[in-house]
Amino acid sequence: MHIPAIPFIHDAGLAAALERRINDKTKPQGSLGVLERLARQIGLIQRSEHPAVARPAIVVCAGDHGVTAEGVSAYPQSVTWQMVENFLAGGAAINVFAQQNGCALHIVDTGVNHDFGARAGLVDCKVAPGTRNFCEQPAMTQEQCERALQSGMQFAASLDCDVLGFGEMGIGNTTAAAAIMAAITGAPARDCVGAGTGLDETGIARKREVVERALQLHANAREPLAVLAAFGGFEIAFIAGAMLGGAQLRKVLLVDGFIVTSALLVAASLQPALLDYCVFSHCSDEAGHRRMLDHLKARPLMQLDLRLGEGTGSALALPLLRSATAFLERMATFSSASVSGKND
Amino acid sequence: MHIPAIPFIHDAGLAAALERRINDKTKPQGSLGVLERLARQIGLIQRSEHPAVARPAIVVCAGDHGVTAEGVSAYPQSVTWQMVENFLAGGAAINVFAQQNGCALHIVDTGVNHDFGARAGLVDCKVAPGTRNFCEQPAMTQEQCERALQSGMQFAASLDCDVLGFGEMGIGNTTAAAAIMAAITGAPARDCVGAGTGLDETGIARKREVVERALQLHANAREPLAVLAAFGGFEIAFIAGAMLGGAQLRKVLLVDGFIVTSALLVAASLQPALLDYCVFSHCSDEAGHRRMLDHLKARPLMQLDLRLGEGTGSALALPLLRSATAFLERMATFSSASVSGKND
Repeated sequence: MHIPAIPFIHDAGLAAALERRINDKTKPQGSLGVLERLARQIGLIQRSEHPAVARPAIVVCAGDHGVTAEGVSAYPQSVTWQMVENFLAGGAAINVFAQQNGCALHIVDTGVNHDFGARAGLVDCKVAPGTRNFCEQPAMTQEQCERALQSGMQFAASLDCDVLGFGEMGIGNTTAAAAIMAAITGAPARDCVGAGTGLDETGIARKREVVERALQLHANAREPLAVLAAFGGFEIAFIAGAMLGGAQLRKVLLVDGFIVTSALLVAASLQPALLDYCVFSHCSDEAGHRRMLDHLKARPLMQLDLRLGEGTGSALALPLLRSATAFLERMATFSSASVSGKND
Repeated sequence: MHIPAIPFIHDAGLAAALERRINDKTKPQGSLGVLERLARQIGLIQRSEHPAVARPAIVVCAGDHGVTAEGVSAYPQSVTWQMVENFLAGGAAINVFAQQNGCALHIVDTGVNHDFGARAGLVDCKVAPGTRNFCEQPAMTQEQCERALQSGMQFAASLDCDVLGFGEMGIGNTTAAAAIMAAITGAPARDCVGAGTGLDETGIARKREVVERALQLHANAREPLAVLAAFGGFEIAFIAGAMLGGAQLRKVLLVDGFIVTSALLVAASLQPALLDYCVFSHCSDEAGHRRMLDHLKARPLMQLDLRLGEGTGSALALPLLRSATAFLERMATFSSASVSGKND
């Protein structure tokens, strides 16, 4: 399939102009730390000395996973569609945080094992009613995998937004994400498998054994898209596609936790330039996430011990992105405010 | 002087009620991590199962320091009053972040070496036009120290707010804060002295020598108020008083960076129960701050490499406090949303 080229964001002239603007603000140089780095990055992505976070959107992608048949989750598969209903009714954590932080929210059915019918507020991109059990066969056919990626690309292109954040819902998807992580980074399964929604030690051991078995079964899956097809899920493939589509249109990509980052592992393997578009909202409490971030040389904005998914970390990080653009746009300069500089 | 008693926040019945409310929300138990901890804490402080962050305020306290005569800052002392003018004109980082996050801002002259005259928007609590050089004598007389503390207590009591954040401005005040830290925690000066607004290695060495000399001069100052009087400054004393006054009225205290935390070191030495009211907004890039937080067994919400002061970290953390109360108030419960629970 065709993977779009991602424009490089580097621009020495613009970078220097942004640096001058940042350093002329009434504060010691560098004293806004990570916010200064963010202002530079968003400026380069948006090709502007006046970057803005005006129309953020978070896309929550839901999908089911055949691997739940192996008993890898503390919750029944039906929670996936029940939580989609909760998103549509406005009662989930992501609804609360998106509304609080002025963020548009899009709920996408990429492959939930449930018939929602035609529903206002639900984007229907269902590839199939759940992936297959990847302990027995590839989670997706190659065609399904490409369809989910394409849907994601197209959906990202259809959105009127400047910041594109991602979230997910899918009982069993930390197992899929752990398998993807192991296959792409080469880390052993024990470093990739965690408690998910709340497994005990026995549950984690079973989940690890499931991932190890699946890695053996799909040992021939080495290319990023083969790994993605082998382990799924539809929401992960859709997010990977939306990341590629979003970066192609120079949107800031707001990365959430373990599952969303597993989608990025795939997408960035296809197009490494994608990483320049990524803002890492948080490091989650799911065991493998820190290692994923290290693998990507990513520094997350926050560490709040979240392990909820849904894009909650992305929504919580949005005010920091707004602060990064706001200080650049609205702070006084040393000259405009008649403040003495260093060693004046 | 009279130090007010701080009410203990512990309440087993309320704590259990908050726990039930938190765990009944449609999310895996504990999956909102630090936000759940915050919701509990704010609930206990406000004595409510429905805690709220409705009227946050940040008090930025400015004061000058005689120790600047020793060449401890990269910026001239006049920057203190110039930045106060910048606050009043709305051009500083704290103005931008407070406005962005819907936070009232109060600017207090606790002891700036400048005659502002009567100015709209500037609270006049000036004790003196700057402290004395603590390398030669105590920065404040005992009477001045108590006056600044009392002013802070009274000012906190006068505010209509539920969250009370703190910020400061004062060229030289990282030197005062480092000396306070060394005197109260017993840490060696080298662990307390950092780059402040941007000293180079030579500057840091001079600043460390200044602090060491002052610690010897004031070796007899051991009680918290004696330490505070020895090293100043007026803004630090005012903030310490405002913390005590705020906690007495059960306000959530939002702690900022190195200087504000030095005020807390003093205030919490007087009334350890104060710490239960504190939310630590961030760990700053100033070298000693992490050690201060460790000394207080405090876990900060964010680490953004900030070293600006002004209360900027507090303003940036506010959305997280709002999120903590918002999820508790507005998320659906498992029963209301008909979502299956764990192992259903």
